Amino acid sequence: MAKKTWTLTDLEQGVYIEQIALGPENVGGTATGYSVSKRTLRGGLSDGVDVIEVNNGVFRFVVIPTRGMGIWKASLGQVRLGWNSPVKGPVHPAFVHLDEPSGIGWLDGFDEMLVRCGLESNGAPEFSDDGTLRYGLHGKIANIPAHKVELTIDGDSGEITVVGVVDEARLFGNKSRMVSTVTTQVGRPGMTVSDQITNISAEESELELLYHVNFGPPLLNPGSKVVLPAAMVAPRDAVAAENVPEWDTYGKETPGSAEVVFFLDLLADAEGRTQTLLRNAAGDQGVSLKFNKNQLPHFTLWKNRQAQPDGYVTGLEPGINFPNVKSFEKHNGRVAMLAPGESRTFDVTIEAYPDANSVKAAEQAVAKLQQGNVPKVREQPNPEWSAE
Amino acid sequence: MAKKTWTLTDLEQGVYIEQIALGPENVGGTATGYSVSKRTLRGGLSDGVDVIEVNNGVFRFVVIPTRGMGIWKASLGQVRLGWNSPVKGPVHPAFVHLDEPSGIGWLDGFDEMLVRCGLESNGAPEFSDDGTLRYGLHGKIANIPAHKVELTIDGDSGEITVVGVVDEARLFGNKSRMVSTVTTQVGRPGMTVSDQITNISAEESELELLYHVNFGPPLLNPGSKVVLPAAMVAPRDAVAAENVPEWDTYGKETPGSAEVVFFLDLLADAEGRTQTLLRNAAGDQGVSLKFNKNQLPHFTLWKNRQAQPDGYVTGLEPGINFPNVKSFEKHNGRVAMLAPGESRTFDVTIEAYPDANSVKAAEQAVAKLQQGNVPKVREQPNPEWSAE
Amino acid sequence: MAKKTWTLTDLEQGVYIEQIALGPENVGGTATGYSVSKRTLRGGLSDGVDVIEVNNGVFRFVVIPTRGMGIWKASLGQVRLGWNSPVKGPVHPAFVHLDEPSGIGWLDGFDEMLVRCGLESNGAPEFSDDGTLRYGLHGKIANIPAHKVELTIDGDSGEITVVGVVDEARLFGNKSRMVSTVTTQVGRPGMTVSDQITNISAEESELELLYHVNFGPPLLNPGSKVVLPAAMVAPRDAVAAENVPEWDTYGKETPGSAEVVFFLDLLADAEGRTQTLLRNAAGDQGVSLKFNKNQLPHFTLWKNRQAQPDGYVTGLEPGINFPNVKSFEKHNGRVAMLAPGESRTFDVTIEAYPDANSVKAAEQAVAKLQQGNVPKVREQPNPEWSAE
Repeated sequence: MAKKTWTLTDLEQGVYIEQIALGPENVGGTATGYSVSKRTLRGGLSDGVDVIEVNNGVFRFVVIPTRGMGIWKASLGQVRLGWNSPVKGPVHPAFVHLDEPSGIGWLDGFDEMLVRCGLESNGAPEFSDDGTLRYGLHGKIANIPAHKVELTIDGDSGEITVVGVVDEARLFGNKSRMVSTVTTQVGRPGMTVSDQITNISAEESELELLYHVNFGPPLLNPGSKVVLPAAMVAPRDAVAAENVPEWDTYGKETPGSAEVVFFLDLLADAEGRTQTLLRNAAGDQGVSLKFNKNQLPHFTLWKNRQAQPDGYVTGLEPGINFPNVKSFEKHNGRVAMLAPGESRTFDVTIEAYPDANSVKAAEQAVAKLQQGNVPKVREQPNPEWSAE
Repeated sequence: MAKKTWTLTDLEQGVYIEQIALGPENVGGTATGYSVSKRTLRGGLSDGVDVIEVNNGVFRFVVIPTRGMGIWKASLGQVRLGWNSPVKGPVHPAFVHLDEPSGIGWLDGFDEMLVRCGLESNGAPEFSDDGTLRYGLHGKIANIPAHKVELTIDGDSGEITVVGVVDEARLFGNKSRMVSTVTTQVGRPGMTVSDQITNISAEESELELLYHVNFGPPLLNPGSKVVLPAAMVAPRDAVAAENVPEWDTYGKETPGSAEVVFFLDLLADAEGRTQTLLRNAAGDQGVSLKFNKNQLPHFTLWKNRQAQPDGYVTGLEPGINFPNVKSFEKHNGRVAMLAPGESRTFDVTIEAYPDANSVKAAEQAVAKLQQGNVPKVREQPNPEWSAE
Repeated sequence: MAKKTWTLTDLEQGVYIEQIALGPENVGGTATGYSVSKRTLRGGLSDGVDVIEVNNGVFRFVVIPTRGMGIWKASLGQVRLGWNSPVKGPVHPAFVHLDEPSGIGWLDGFDEMLVRCGLESNGAPEFSDDGTLRYGLHGKIANIPAHKVELTIDGDSGEITVVGVVDEARLFGNKSRMVSTVTTQVGRPGMTVSDQITNISAEESELELLYHVNFGPPLLNPGSKVVLPAAMVAPRDAVAAENVPEWDTYGKETPGSAEVVFFLDLLADAEGRTQTLLRNAAGDQGVSLKFNKNQLPHFTLWKNRQAQPDGYVTGLEPGINFPNVKSFEKHNGRVAMLAPGESRTFDVTIEAYPDANSVKAAEQAVAKLQQGNVPKVREQPNPEWSAE
């Protein structure tokens, strides 16, 4: 059997591989045309950041163990997935001002295609009555490095798997462990992130989790469209309410414009499976997120209309909650409580489309989920969804 | 003379040894069976942390220059000293949220057996009236790396000494220098930490200092006991007041229970020497702290009764103050004022006991200090000791 | 042509040179006697800090790409430029508590001769009404590493140039790029810092900038004098008001004394060029800053009279603003607004004087700028200049 595993990092065992480059010649088997490399970035805000680059022959992506197993960027030929953040990363957590009293220091590290928001909290920063920060924007998990990282390549099936273990834990606080498994296969136009999150405490713990998956040009351009099976769409706030008519389309870069956020209840099949598509104006490039509504029941659509240098970007964000302040989410029953030892698994698949045919097939898949149901599009925020 | 010194770090001179492993063959002399190694940890929260592992043939311990010369863990055969923190460290200070507005970000790095709390402040976080953090939990010294580290091995006497220099200094602030000397000897079942702290300012400076020395299983189990010569024992607060009857014994793991803290006035011999013992239920394993009450007049006993995954642990904590908010300690005269150039020295010895005989001998030593005096055990907090 | 360029860091291209030492033998041409080296410091608070040491044969200085292209120290023979900070650096940004709710955590990294304060803000920390920090002391730029660093040596002209690119940028925030060019020439008794700052956003951005250039002994001693062409001198506050009579001279080390700050309007020539000199009591050592008032219209003189261990130091600080809280500066029109894509350039030259003749020549140059004008020295703060 041509299946090999490399331990890239194991803090407990004192294992750490600074640099490695692997391909079929290191594995054997029948699969060809792929490569995996690991290196540590040096200089600037990335100094000390470990990255793992996976190329399955057609689809490439970069995993960042140092940033909580986020996915920096990906591409399928000309289809580049990710965005051009004003921050040039990936940023080492030492340079991220998570503790900034403003509560938005998390933005210092925000330049990934896929970044997890959680685990104890996510969403807008929450303050005590006296203005003291209680929960910073989008939580801590994206700025905690994995203490164990393993790479497995199956030279027969062509499956490539990166597993990373990240603990968000503190005495007198929540103690959650995430085992993140990132999988692709030779020739597959995408990847799957499968995260098992376990409450490693002997006490109940709270969990908020949202996958902030971000795309800019070339997928995002004037006329781009998000295609998804919606039961209900609601604007988050007054700014979004003004944009309800064009909730599913994207306009031109608009310097100075505020972000627009919609909260959605998606439709899914009998097993909970659902799919959301972003496609460009021409309809010849696109990307889908596939996930399960039973795992990730709430969906947020973030449209940042600022100009490209300021982050012209959209976020497709399945979550167990909406990214409001935590107390509001808790009040509305969207903070998960995990019993001691309890685990939950979350799977998100990203699939890229390089041509009109594949985009059209994805649209048809969404249409099938929509099944002719007319989505209820609210003019005003849903008071159970929006804290504002 | 078979005595050699290695400079492991000297920032000013540009000296830094990334990795070294030493033993009798590098020193000469008659002492045998020991080893000392230095390395830099990679990966996870420990990335970039320097550790020095000392094995004197029977007793092993790990010094962490990067964390203010803390002692990570130690062992004497089966007697493992330290605890299982929910945080897997040792944690690089870059990952510790000391500035978290909550004031308890220090906990992100808390997994050592011996961690110093100070130097400008320690104890509970203190806030201004408007909720702004003034002093974070337990101060800064544990998250400041040593800028000079020397190792000396005497091949004749078998003495092994690690000296580290750590500055806690800032323009317009306190300026303290700690020269920490960690000593052991071939075959000795323990070690001594001797810290000289100097006010390197031309102005008066303030000093709070507490040795937070922490033990979990196997020393800590239901029925374990702390044996110490007490003049007075007082609960810190209402929670502790409920636990006064069992102040010196440990119960079973109790998820969800609050920490219990007692403040003590210990007895000592004519020279101020005193000793506190923690022993397991069977009485066949134990550990003592030996120190001098003239140096460290106040003693705190921390009992964290949570389950093991949440940190089932006790802290034996000699200090120049109790770990209350600094203003309360200052008001009660327990913050030291150091004149310009003034130094103070603090010695703490840790001794491990691997069998019933050695535990019994330690109990007898404590009994001798107690000399039949009946400790005054207060039912309620001492208002001069407890801020709450 | 004997001109060579080395890319020392280029994050985007994956280039990073850990260590290099260069001299005439690596360049060719006619220039001799110089050397340039780059290395990464290890240990203590400097662990991971990149430094570039330039020696042009007579003048030496150290550039710190990791600290926003600050200049650590410089020297011309016996003339040592810089100061003895209580902090022993250069300090890696990971150890600087910029987010400390007190707002003065920036001081943890403050030990450079030349440190830029900005770019979004500088000056005293500013808080919201509820005590929450809005802008920390002196801003962020000094704690952001350059992501691109290039070294060029012209073996014919003897010009040595270090260029570093530093971004201070965040989604939903200011986005400024600084291209800092540090230049010297073989045999020249000084150096020039030329910073081009560009608003890389498609929206207007704000800019505060102040060059905090600091000198201690041996240039600073009792009787040292600052010699500058002044139109107006005003004390910042009541403490400074008491020191107006000796505003341009330095007294002995005075433990416990408060800092004294004066705000000045300087005179300049027709092109805006001006010069400020610090000379020792004997008048046989000195240093000038040369800059252009059209670029840097406001000048701050900082006199820290504490004893040497506490930072006996003076700051000569040309800026586009005074270091008051940002809202006060904005109210008084001293915060620059940059249009999208707009750039501004700031040039500061440092020139050292090793003997009485060169000091005297600098005094004459200042006198020529003063042209017999009597400076208006205010007894009390100028309400348009001082927030206090």
